[in-house]
Amino acid sequence: MALVVQKYGGSSVANAERIKRVAERIVAARKAGDDVVVVVSAMGDTTDELLDLANQVSPLPPGRELDMLLTAGERISMALLAMAIHNLGYEARSYTGSQAGVLTTSVHGKARIIDVTPGRLRTALDEGAIAIVAGFQGVSQDTKDITTLGRGGSDTTAVALAAALHADVCEIYTDVDGVFTADPRIVPDAKHIKKITYEEMLDLAAGGAKVLMLRCVEYARRFSVPIHVRSSYSNKEGTLVTGSMEDPDVENALITGVAHERSDAKITIVGVPDEPGAAGRIFETVAKAEINIDMIVQNVSTEGTGRTDISFTLPKADGQTAMNALDKIKDQVKFKGLLFDDHIGKVSLVGAGMRSHPGVAAEFFATIGAAGVNIEMISTSEIRVSVVCRDTDLDTAVRAVHAAFELGGNEEAVVYGGTGR
Amino acid sequence: MALVVQKYGGSSVANAERIKRVAERIVAARKAGDDVVVVVSAMGDTTDELLDLANQVSPLPPGRELDMLLTAGERISMALLAMAIHNLGYEARSYTGSQAGVLTTSVHGKARIIDVTPGRLRTALDEGAIAIVAGFQGVSQDTKDITTLGRGGSDTTAVALAAALHADVCEIYTDVDGVFTADPRIVPDAKHIKKITYEEMLDLAAGGAKVLMLRCVEYARRFSVPIHVRSSYSNKEGTLVTGSMEDPDVENALITGVAHERSDAKITIVGVPDEPGAAGRIFETVAKAEINIDMIVQNVSTEGTGRTDISFTLPKADGQTAMNALDKIKDQVKFKGLLFDDHIGKVSLVGAGMRSHPGVAAEFFATIGAAGVNIEMISTSEIRVSVVCRDTDLDTAVRAVHAAFELGGNEEAVVYGGTGR
Repeated sequence: MALVVQKYGGSSVANAERIKRVAERIVAARKAGDDVVVVVSAMGDTTDELLDLANQVSPLPPGRELDMLLTAGERISMALLAMAIHNLGYEARSYTGSQAGVLTTSVHGKARIIDVTPGRLRTALDEGAIAIVAGFQGVSQDTKDITTLGRGGSDTTAVALAAALHADVCEIYTDVDGVFTADPRIVPDAKHIKKITYEEMLDLAAGGAKVLMLRCVEYARRFSVPIHVRSSYSNKEGTLVTGSMEDPDVENALITGVAHERSDAKITIVGVPDEPGAAGRIFETVAKAEINIDMIVQNVSTEGTGRTDISFTLPKADGQTAMNALDKIKDQVKFKGLLFDDHIGKVSLVGAGMRSHPGVAAEFFATIGAAGVNIEMISTSEIRVSVVCRDTDLDTAVRAVHAAFELGGNEEAVVYGGTGR
Repeated sequence: MALVVQKYGGSSVANAERIKRVAERIVAARKAGDDVVVVVSAMGDTTDELLDLANQVSPLPPGRELDMLLTAGERISMALLAMAIHNLGYEARSYTGSQAGVLTTSVHGKARIIDVTPGRLRTALDEGAIAIVAGFQGVSQDTKDITTLGRGGSDTTAVALAAALHADVCEIYTDVDGVFTADPRIVPDAKHIKKITYEEMLDLAAGGAKVLMLRCVEYARRFSVPIHVRSSYSNKEGTLVTGSMEDPDVENALITGVAHERSDAKITIVGVPDEPGAAGRIFETVAKAEINIDMIVQNVSTEGTGRTDISFTLPKADGQTAMNALDKIKDQVKFKGLLFDDHIGKVSLVGAGMRSHPGVAAEFFATIGAAGVNIEMISTSEIRVSVVCRDTDLDTAVRAVHAAFELGGNEEAVVYGGTGR
């Protein structure tokens, strides 16, 4: 008998009919003899509707209250899912993040999981019940206030519970059949990946692959939780994300896939004095604003001026906050100005094979150039190489790279709709 | 500086605009120097919408999950209200029933408050914040599961918090200007009551006056919490409900008012063996089903048969449950049959003066008879006399009694709409 944690996103539970289908899938797993813990997101558009209500009441709602409001979404979906399971003759009990023991930092809207104390879930399982847990939420260890984990938080909840309960697998149900060598919406012959390492998945996620969020994969790697990404609309095997590659998917040995990101913006700090501490102060300021930056590029100091430009990319949604924070230190750091550009796109090539094939990056740049796409920023990690281009050139670049590295398959990928949180 | 607990029902916070108006009223009290704790119901139709979702998923949702679902309603309204107050420049923090320390029994949907441990609210007040608390909900002391208090639960939450915090007054904001000598929707010249005792209010509530629920008044009497029932749409003084009548509203000395109830049904148990223990078993069965019954009438045994009929009234909504429960003990108790009648109405006359004026009941019956209304059941308490008639005769009976006891005033009552939970 295995212990399985299943996570269903917002589109999988968007209405009563879908909730009943998910209930059947859960009961099937329970019938097969497994202990089942389910993590669920808010139904379809609930979060957007609640945000809309908040905006009607206040232009700048306090984070604590916004978290209190938004967590009502999972409360509704998890209770309904538990009812649907009851209706099939199985015992199910729903738990808020707080009740499930998801302890977090107290940064509202972007809290991080510190610890998980799943005593009540364990009891429920021991008593033969299916435990349904609200994703995306927890309780601050310090203030005891309700928190939310931010984008992709429900996936992280699932992995964290799987780790705390020593589950055999964490199944993330989504609207695609798993991870592909590129986004099938852009590259129609993108190939399904059967197995992938945490490391490669991390770099795909960092490159913008939306199927799993970075933080969730990091958590899974740290606690060695096997993740099975699969579709909630079919029974196909999805993609298994694990630490080792005992039975590697040979065809993907060199390059795993192409990821892209369309929701980043670029901030350029113009005329930064080329002196020790300047960059430190700048990125300390951004970090204090709780903004995750991605690529950073600093050019060599323009000859004779003693000044340089620093550019970095960040989520578009954080653009205003970052610009405000940086503007406040303008006089202190003595830079000349700030530029904001939200029409950028990022293409990344990911693959463990890059370590031993130094020519990959060069071929990547050459392919993009040959496709007529101008490269604006470059950043590389051990198994990833990323470039920033105009957002309008993004699809062209992705397709060109996917074709150049011969990643395509024969199987047609099926895409079902939006993703949950 | 006083400590005020304010309660706003669902219609007072039905949309963003109304929430902002309520926020202004709360801030006005805070500005006047008072510490303010606010209890809030779910927005307008939220509860019905959630119940509708539940019914789409399961015909018989488990109580635990239904409570989890419904409590999302107050979570939304209280967070929005806190945001609206923030927007006016005041600090407000929302708390679930559980966070506010509302400890209850574990009977889902009808839990009773056992204790209130308002430590977090006290801290919030000490730090100058306005505390917003979800009405209608608490946490089971035994199981730690989320519970709801049933109809009128938000009023009870408010009174219980006022008691625990030793508040100076508990203000219940509703859609009428307070308590009237009869329902102004039926009796246009119903008179506004400025002051009323717990005892009289209890009997009015038991008689069907919807403005305050029975349990809430009981709680207030037990802990001597003064209740001020007033309109959330005006600044008029409402009705003060207290223990003593130091400055009695002289005109209302004899009779307080006429109450009516339209949502009860009558069950008649036909042919009950006239032997010890029969009635006990019947009402034990009904009590076990957690059903509150109101009037009970047992006729003398029909001569020679050794059998009698027992009738009682109960909320229509509990009718099915009661009939099922009673049907199960049919063979055990050996009664002949069950009749269900949901077309009844109840009229009650309430007044402390009845104690010393024995003629009141007789005049009450005579008035109803003279109005051409047939009396089907009679029940009396120390300061109340009630009769059951056809529901179609109810308005006629209420108007006749109100006129006969000269309860009318000159002021026109203003009625604004539905009531919250």
